[in-house]
Amino acid sequence: MPEYSVIGKRLPAIDGIAKATGEAKYTDDMVLPRMLFGKILRSPYPHARIINIDTTRAERLPGVKAVVTAKDTTRKKYGVNSKLADQYPLAIDKVRYIGDEIAAVAAIEEDIAEEALDLINVEYEELPAVFDPEEAMKEDAPMIHDVERNISGRTWLNFGDVDKGFAESDYVREDRFETNDQSHCQIEPYVALATFDTSRKLTIWTPNMSPFVKRRMLARALNLPESDIRVCKSYIGGAFGGRVEMFACEFCASLLSMKTGRPVKITYTREEVFTTTRRRHPMIIELKTGVKRDGTLMAREIRVIGDTGAYNSTGLQAVYICCDGFVRTYRCPNIKYEGHCVYTNKTISGAMRGHGSIQSRFADESQLDMIAEELGIDPVELRLKNARQSGDVLPNKVQITSCGLTECIQRATESAGWKAKRGKQPGNRGLGIACTAGTTSLNVSPLCSSAAVIKLNDDGRATLLTGAVDNGQHTETMLAQIAAEELGLTLEDVKVTAGDSESCPTDIGSYLMSLTFVTGKAVKLAAADAKRQLLEIAAERLEAEVEELDAKDRRIYVKRNPERAISFPDAVMTGLMKGIPILGKGYYMPQTEYSNMWTGQARETPTYSFCAQVAEVEVDRETGQVKLVETSVAHDCGLAINPMDVEGQLQGCVAMSQGMALSEEFIWDNGQMLNPSFSDYRIPLPLDVPEVKPIIVESVDPEGPFGAKDAGEPPAHLGPAAIANAVYDAIGVRIKKLPITPDKILQALRRKE
Amino acid sequence: MPEYSVIGKRLPAIDGIAKATGEAKYTDDMVLPRMLFGKILRSPYPHARIINIDTTRAERLPGVKAVVTAKDTTRKKYGVNSKLADQYPLAIDKVRYIGDEIAAVAAIEEDIAEEALDLINVEYEELPAVFDPEEAMKEDAPMIHDVERNISGRTWLNFGDVDKGFAESDYVREDRFETNDQSHCQIEPYVALATFDTSRKLTIWTPNMSPFVKRRMLARALNLPESDIRVCKSYIGGAFGGRVEMFACEFCASLLSMKTGRPVKITYTREEVFTTTRRRHPMIIELKTGVKRDGTLMAREIRVIGDTGAYNSTGLQAVYICCDGFVRTYRCPNIKYEGHCVYTNKTISGAMRGHGSIQSRFADESQLDMIAEELGIDPVELRLKNARQSGDVLPNKVQITSCGLTECIQRATESAGWKAKRGKQPGNRGLGIACTAGTTSLNVSPLCSSAAVIKLNDDGRATLLTGAVDNGQHTETMLAQIAAEELGLTLEDVKVTAGDSESCPTDIGSYLMSLTFVTGKAVKLAAADAKRQLLEIAAERLEAEVEELDAKDRRIYVKRNPERAISFPDAVMTGLMKGIPILGKGYYMPQTEYSNMWTGQARETPTYSFCAQVAEVEVDRETGQVKLVETSVAHDCGLAINPMDVEGQLQGCVAMSQGMALSEEFIWDNGQMLNPSFSDYRIPLPLDVPEVKPIIVESVDPEGPFGAKDAGEPPAHLGPAAIANAVYDAIGVRIKKLPITPDKILQALRRKE
Repeated sequence: MPEYSVIGKRLPAIDGIAKATGEAKYTDDMVLPRMLFGKILRSPYPHARIINIDTTRAERLPGVKAVVTAKDTTRKKYGVNSKLADQYPLAIDKVRYIGDEIAAVAAIEEDIAEEALDLINVEYEELPAVFDPEEAMKEDAPMIHDVERNISGRTWLNFGDVDKGFAESDYVREDRFETNDQSHCQIEPYVALATFDTSRKLTIWTPNMSPFVKRRMLARALNLPESDIRVCKSYIGGAFGGRVEMFACEFCASLLSMKTGRPVKITYTREEVFTTTRRRHPMIIELKTGVKRDGTLMAREIRVIGDTGAYNSTGLQAVYICCDGFVRTYRCPNIKYEGHCVYTNKTISGAMRGHGSIQSRFADESQLDMIAEELGIDPVELRLKNARQSGDVLPNKVQITSCGLTECIQRATESAGWKAKRGKQPGNRGLGIACTAGTTSLNVSPLCSSAAVIKLNDDGRATLLTGAVDNGQHTETMLAQIAAEELGLTLEDVKVTAGDSESCPTDIGSYLMSLTFVTGKAVKLAAADAKRQLLEIAAERLEAEVEELDAKDRRIYVKRNPERAISFPDAVMTGLMKGIPILGKGYYMPQTEYSNMWTGQARETPTYSFCAQVAEVEVDRETGQVKLVETSVAHDCGLAINPMDVEGQLQGCVAMSQGMALSEEFIWDNGQMLNPSFSDYRIPLPLDVPEVKPIIVESVDPEGPFGAKDAGEPPAHLGPAAIANAVYDAIGVRIKKLPITPDKILQALRRKE
Repeated sequence: MPEYSVIGKRLPAIDGIAKATGEAKYTDDMVLPRMLFGKILRSPYPHARIINIDTTRAERLPGVKAVVTAKDTTRKKYGVNSKLADQYPLAIDKVRYIGDEIAAVAAIEEDIAEEALDLINVEYEELPAVFDPEEAMKEDAPMIHDVERNISGRTWLNFGDVDKGFAESDYVREDRFETNDQSHCQIEPYVALATFDTSRKLTIWTPNMSPFVKRRMLARALNLPESDIRVCKSYIGGAFGGRVEMFACEFCASLLSMKTGRPVKITYTREEVFTTTRRRHPMIIELKTGVKRDGTLMAREIRVIGDTGAYNSTGLQAVYICCDGFVRTYRCPNIKYEGHCVYTNKTISGAMRGHGSIQSRFADESQLDMIAEELGIDPVELRLKNARQSGDVLPNKVQITSCGLTECIQRATESAGWKAKRGKQPGNRGLGIACTAGTTSLNVSPLCSSAAVIKLNDDGRATLLTGAVDNGQHTETMLAQIAAEELGLTLEDVKVTAGDSESCPTDIGSYLMSLTFVTGKAVKLAAADAKRQLLEIAAERLEAEVEELDAKDRRIYVKRNPERAISFPDAVMTGLMKGIPILGKGYYMPQTEYSNMWTGQARETPTYSFCAQVAEVEVDRETGQVKLVETSVAHDCGLAINPMDVEGQLQGCVAMSQGMALSEEFIWDNGQMLNPSFSDYRIPLPLDVPEVKPIIVESVDPEGPFGAKDAGEPPAHLGPAAIANAVYDAIGVRIKKLPITPDKILQALRRKE
């Protein structure tokens, strides 16, 4: 690998001190003159017809400045995928889950707004509701939308010939797995501060994952031109996939500001965050697999049912990704899959770190362990035998250009002491492994591209303009490292202006695992463009050809005689004197085709990243409590731009997937979530998270910026699978329905006895 | 002229409603959390040595968070021209005028900061002072800086052979003129709000004329890299040339924020604005002119003394421009000039609308009228005979490419009824004329260039990023018009992000008459670049060559078949799907040489604009009061991007120069200004300003954007000259020393009798 100055270094985050000291202001910290407070009226019923809404009493309450209902809206449906749009910003005719938005109020004080909600009189006609997706798919189930059997969408595919594959298999088995719902639990609640000014421009601060996606969705829902909306940068307290779409707080704060001409802020309570934003899709996965005696995968048939809740959101994508997960990680010539996205009268499901994949991995990796046991093969050997390799061409036509999966498996098992410990641990300890592959920048929309602008200042330093946002993953530091390395500057020389839809160029956003790969690439190209301009100016001064020059450590020098050099400020000033202010631009769009989720027949991604995790657990046979003792996670991130940040991502991924594996779930009672608080909904606390041994595998992708792919998502796919496999190794019981709670362990132990 | 859709239209300002309703927030309106208030301790003596500064009592006052003196600074001198840097941000050793900055305090309340100033104990040793520039130039005058005879700089030049020119003249006369000081009187006071954060970045809001000049000067004075300083956009309540440099409020607010880690705001009182910011340079102009009998100018010898006050600031530029004014407006083969910039112990003089030129015009145009009378030629005829014409090559090598001076003279006199009224008015009425030429973007620094970026949004509309600031002249509207016209959009389709040194590309600034010409050109080029990208995308869709296409009214169409077209949003979306977000960039630097003010031998400007004003006055012989009754002003602005805004500039220019002509002056008593308030210092009020007849002359400059040059400054050159000439026409007395106050009129009338 080349010698880098900034890339690959363990550099602290450029905004670390601001965040640690409280200097960083989050949206709810902000106060604008004449600001009003907004509150949202929500449905108390899981399924009901709205007969009438009377807001007159609320409007008369002193201090109330505006009340909005569907009457104030365009009455057009919106959705992540416009073809699947099925939701009104404020309910019309029907409500479909407890929490569905009906009206919103803006008042001079928060408690006045709250009081006004009680004064809005809504007449409902209750309708029968359905909460289980398999019940919802029955012919006589209550119809939530106008779709048959409540199936909002389907995805299917047939690669090879599964019947032939099963016929040629030595061993075939079928299992059914069920996964749980999970909340993102970002520490910052959902919040929006919107202000509509006299120039008819809407300015909004809201934690988001892409100012451009927010702008687009708000523009459509509010019937404003996109150019009349500015989504500003704000510090963001976590996203984890949950902040891509437009949320009611954003829509209602905007609409109320347009109606009142005053700034309006709406901040959700934690209960609202749990019950009315998004949750992970619970899935039922029926999996049939055929193998040769030596473990070679021959055929797989997968049937997935995803519970999307009351509205589509990303439901079909999640089901597609779940199915697709069986294609990417292991070689198998014959695959048939069928996915169903199903409505229920519950909180909407949506994108969440590991979206669709964590479910796929739980089923796939659990079953592989059962097959390995059946065949008497070490689970690691079974995986190594079938693991994807560089050069493989997938059924979706993507050729794998860089693949560190084998190295991930080898290094994770080595780090965990697999050979010495697995199946040989005393007491109730056990080890489990799981593997995954992730798409780097899944192409789900025509807008999955990024641009970046770099301008050089008079002091020879650089300002980077990028539309990327930082949800906590140190985006700005990473992008500044890329720019600094390419330009020949140090990290402190690069200042970042990011996340503002107005001053920054278009950007794909901090999701779909595309930030490093797509935005990083655009930044690298912008820096290269600026550098080329700089070298052209320097070439004249140094009496050399551009090709003979390079830049490093704030100097432009002649490669074969590095003493002949000029400084960056000198070159910039020379440029200005010639009327050439240096301004580089770059853009990048992954060379993929628009994914067809309905058939899976598309080049969905430019490259894949790979990951393997080994978990060691200890099970308390008395209480049923599973403790994650230690875990090693090896991730092929292509190249670590900042190893400290990659390790941070691996550790965070482990904690999040550990929560899904062991403790997190929505407790439902007829569509009502019973545990919407951090005391009743248990995420792993710092003391619950064990030592995580992060292992960075660098396959150096030919297309990624400096070879980088991604780091924040695939390592979150594996907790449930690795832990379930480790539990089996520890106590010999197989849990196929998440989460692995003490009562399930105790029941399984009793059943086994 | 081509048919334009947006250019040349009377369009209202895009931020007009925000300004009219008070929605626009100015710097002093802003409040940041934990913000402190700063106050500055100033010298009570016009000239004194500082023996000691004791801040201990001030520091102990509860609520005081920091006190800074020169000890906290780099102790390096700064100045507009680094070669002439002569001022410390906080005084060291000496103070040189009443108001010189010594220390600054930051406290939790404004009155605590005020109180703390009284607790700072400064020991002075008073020094003899000098207030008159001619006195200051004497051998035995007190020395203000370490320069002989207090002459801080000189400018001289010899074009042709003046001795020969005078010898060949039929008539030669010599006169001495004196001009007054004048305050900019922006309605918004000088103010700065600075905050230095934990990332060591300084963010500052302050009314300015160029965020990049402010950034550069602050960086040097504070010893910070420029990239660590962000000058943010703020609404600005007028500048008129007076907000280019770094002011003590900006430096001290920044330094106090760096010391305290808290935001600091310093707002000047009106008295501070009058006495410690900048004033117009008073000048003494000795002018000798030789003419042929027919009025042809043969030779001119000019000696100028400019009073720069306690420090250089733009003193030498002002003297240079004054001398240069005799070169531009009229043809004359032999010119010799010599200018002296002289220190006095008074308020610093600096750039102000008409900087150097208004003084030059007063002398030149007054003397031309005297010559015309002597020769029995109509003053208008004399001017038409000598007026510059397109194609003239000036001694400084600039070829005049577009020149509407003759048309300006003809149309202004026609509008004023010159032939019918001049010399024929009953009572005490009279008419006077004056003419001028202005440099469009005088090139005084290597940094006189602008860049601009235009990005197209998904809705097909555009965002313009420009570093230009709006001081009240509707900059953003004008630049948006240029972008819209070039792109083929409407004004409302172009959103402007301006005046932010961080997100916007480098810009020359809103001064030196360069905004329309230089920034406007950069914006036009950026729009052309974006349009080219758009047409390339459209060409493929429309199956045509780029050359066959054009864009107008939000559509890209085939020129010979305008029905074959695609919409802007469609083209933008097509681009995005190909991974081409449209991002245009443009930059422009006027093709001039760096001006050598010491010899005047440089191509100072790419083009000149021209103006003529006719004033009609009525003089009250009892009170000596001169009333401006009516005035016609014709300006060759190249092309009016927005005629309404050009007219607004002409009207504002008339009012400002009327004030200088008739009422505005600093009343001095030993270096103390006695009238630093709007009640004692009299600017023309709305009822004092007469009907102004604005006449737009369009010479369509070949280099300017759409042919435009400038509009905000040359029309401000002429009030004193035109009014003085009109007074002579009315009552036969010639006032050679400004302002033309009632007592001077009465004295002159007495002398005449």
